[in-house]
Amino acid sequence: MRARDLLTDFPTVALDTPIRETARLMAELDLAGLIVLDDDGLPHSVLPGTQVLALAVPGYCQDDPALARVVDEAHADRFLDDVGDRTVRDALPPRPRELPVTDPDATILEVAALMARTRSPLVAVVEDDRYLGAITLTVLFDRVTGA
Amino acid sequence: MRARDLLTDFPTVALDTPIRETARLMAELDLAGLIVLDDDGLPHSVLPGTQVLALAVPGYCQDDPALARVVDEAHADRFLDDVGDRTVRDALPPRPRELPVTDPDATILEVAALMARTRSPLVAVVEDDRYLGAITLTVLFDRVTGA
Repeated sequence: MRARDLLTDFPTVALDTPIRETARLMAELDLAGLIVLDDDGLPHSVLPGTQVLALAVPGYCQDDPALARVVDEAHADRFLDDVGDRTVRDALPPRPRELPVTDPDATILEVAALMARTRSPLVAVVEDDRYLGAITLTVLFDRVTGA
Repeated sequence: MRARDLLTDFPTVALDTPIRETARLMAELDLAGLIVLDDDGLPHSVLPGTQVLALAVPGYCQDDPALARVVDEAHADRFLDDVGDRTVRDALPPRPRELPVTDPDATILEVAALMARTRSPLVAVVEDDRYLGAITLTVLFDRVTGA
């Protein structure tokens, strides 16, 4: 089995995609993170959904989540409005989480080693400077367990 | 909206669940991690799928994933066999990833603040020393974006 046999058409966003749109995508696709492509269409990093929250949730609530309970419920339900028109670029941390990249000929053991080393449940596959898709941890487990 | 309105019946494993079984569960349920309950049935930690790989993939491959390519493909495909009968307890790192816990009355902003603070896309909900389920980041986004 090679990386090309495990590929999925994993969804991506651009650096200037609005944050609200990434939250909608994550909800619709049931994904806790998305792959960010740079301006050349190559994998840049992963945007974890928790980073979207880090941008939207007021700092004093993050410092002490119990303080969040004093915000009235109607306002609390709309907290995501506070991201305004900010984009993926604004949400990425200074040192974005590493997105391992491999080529379509990598063996399944090589992909597993990359995931283990980087603690990333996602590996992007690139060939000839083109993003082909990604391999997810669950697809990899599906193949090695015969589930 | 309160935590009780966002609850899902998130699957759990025990400390002595065999690692092979957790990999099968993750594949079947399409989840990159599972909640580990302790012997009292209370949330203990999260077992990330990448930690299962860290246990199964030989150390020299993790140090240099390119070395994994020299292992012949037939053997590479069966790397998970190497976990033998080891259990969740063996796979957890010395300091397991924090699993935030809240109560059913927490507001959605409080849950979001917990996820942002701990960088966890999962919050366990406990009442009267009983695990009720968990709130996932994607369910939270679903509610706040109206997706």
